[in-house]
Amino acid sequence: MQNVSQSRDVFYVSDGTAITCETIGHVVLGQFSLRANEKTFPFIESEDKLAELIKQISVSYEQSGVEPLVFFSIVIPEIREQLLTATAHFYDVLEGVVQQVKSDLKMEPAPKLQRSHSVAKDSDKYFDRIAAIEYTLAHDDGVSLRDIEQADIILLGVSRSGKTPTSLYMAMQFGLRVVNYPFIDDDLRALKLLPQFEIHRHKLFGLTIDAQRLTEIRENRLSGSDYASTQQCMTELASVEALFRREAIPYINTSSLSVEEISTRILERAGLKRRLF
Amino acid sequence: MQNVSQSRDVFYVSDGTAITCETIGHVVLGQFSLRANEKTFPFIESEDKLAELIKQISVSYEQSGVEPLVFFSIVIPEIREQLLTATAHFYDVLEGVVQQVKSDLKMEPAPKLQRSHSVAKDSDKYFDRIAAIEYTLAHDDGVSLRDIEQADIILLGVSRSGKTPTSLYMAMQFGLRVVNYPFIDDDLRALKLLPQFEIHRHKLFGLTIDAQRLTEIRENRLSGSDYASTQQCMTELASVEALFRREAIPYINTSSLSVEEISTRILERAGLKRRLF
Repeated sequence: MQNVSQSRDVFYVSDGTAITCETIGHVVLGQFSLRANEKTFPFIESEDKLAELIKQISVSYEQSGVEPLVFFSIVIPEIREQLLTATAHFYDVLEGVVQQVKSDLKMEPAPKLQRSHSVAKDSDKYFDRIAAIEYTLAHDDGVSLRDIEQADIILLGVSRSGKTPTSLYMAMQFGLRVVNYPFIDDDLRALKLLPQFEIHRHKLFGLTIDAQRLTEIRENRLSGSDYASTQQCMTELASVEALFRREAIPYINTSSLSVEEISTRILERAGLKRRLF
Repeated sequence: MQNVSQSRDVFYVSDGTAITCETIGHVVLGQFSLRANEKTFPFIESEDKLAELIKQISVSYEQSGVEPLVFFSIVIPEIREQLLTATAHFYDVLEGVVQQVKSDLKMEPAPKLQRSHSVAKDSDKYFDRIAAIEYTLAHDDGVSLRDIEQADIILLGVSRSGKTPTSLYMAMQFGLRVVNYPFIDDDLRALKLLPQFEIHRHKLFGLTIDAQRLTEIRENRLSGSDYASTQQCMTELASVEALFRREAIPYINTSSLSVEEISTRILERAGLKRRLF
């Protein structure tokens, strides 16, 4: 990232939430050595909003002297057509793939507004997702082990190893019910699994992390504490990893992984099916 | 969705998490009248995993008699090349857009493994995201109003109007710090804002919902209770909406909106900037 050769205004535009546009545009731009000033315009479904957007694209072009990049997905034909009259480089993030599928399947696509993440489309599935989020919240950080038999997976690890964000992501993104349970001092000395976990062994999954990274994270929270000391972190991690190995609990090191990566790796290794929303 | 003309096996394949592939493929398929049997293959980065995947693609083709659809994004050239030898319809979900950007900007793309959601890429940003999730969790459902001045937004609404999932999504997806506060019986009778909210008025945002939908959701939780009765739901909603109007608090009806849509609409109306991870 040293030789940033240029900077560009980037617009993510949709008549829906624009989340898909952002995702695609952001990943694509990650392949170019470019400083992007990103701005998102969701729900462009009226002439008024479109006019305001086109004005901003013009201003960007006039001020920077180069065409801004517009990653878009617009279903309404008139809005789409007018948008394309602005001075910019345009990228329809879905159209290329849609056209290929159309040609391969010899079927006509039927573009629909807000076709993704729609509540109406599948209400039961949507309720399941909300229920998964609530279940996971209610079982965060060992607060409760009630209804543990309903869990899809049980995450174990020391404090700050990434259990909570991972659990919530798995619930939100994949509709999974996740219990997460921290090892605290007493557990660490005793070093054995809770009896409640015995019959759910196949659902257990461990998180670990490099001692140095854990120290950094804990320092960020409680600077100068014993809790954050390298010694304490090393002791806790050694005990927990020994437990994972002894009990044959699969585990991964979260040190350099994002929440998305941790979640996906767990799903893969635990053989859990993703649900798509 | 009545005339489902055919069913197809669909593979989402990546040497990363495959989340982007899933998102794009799922949205694209939503435009076709097709029953999709979706399966995801993340982290296809070794010959072994590739061989297993290719076998499954073959089995699908042999059993169904039609080419399965493979939505993919593979950075490693050898893996990509071999994958494409399988009998299937292939869709490189990013390549079309990447090539267009390359041509417009006259820059060479530099594809990188795990280029999205990477921790290493921007560690501070990543910490901010985790901090937002933790802040939001600690301020869920009125449990605490501590450090309320750090909130990006404060969501208000009756029980089951969608506050918690929306708050967590906004934290996870956009890195926002969200407080959410429920109106309970006492508040409803008194019908005024907490004094603590006064100086944060500009951050307040209301959620409301149709009485019928609220009844349905509450029935799902506590069947036959007063809490779930249509009368109770109507009374609560009328009081709260009156409050929103009187206090000029912007609000939206969440009845037919997904978590993604609610979050995006709030961001838009509140003028909050999204952060991309």
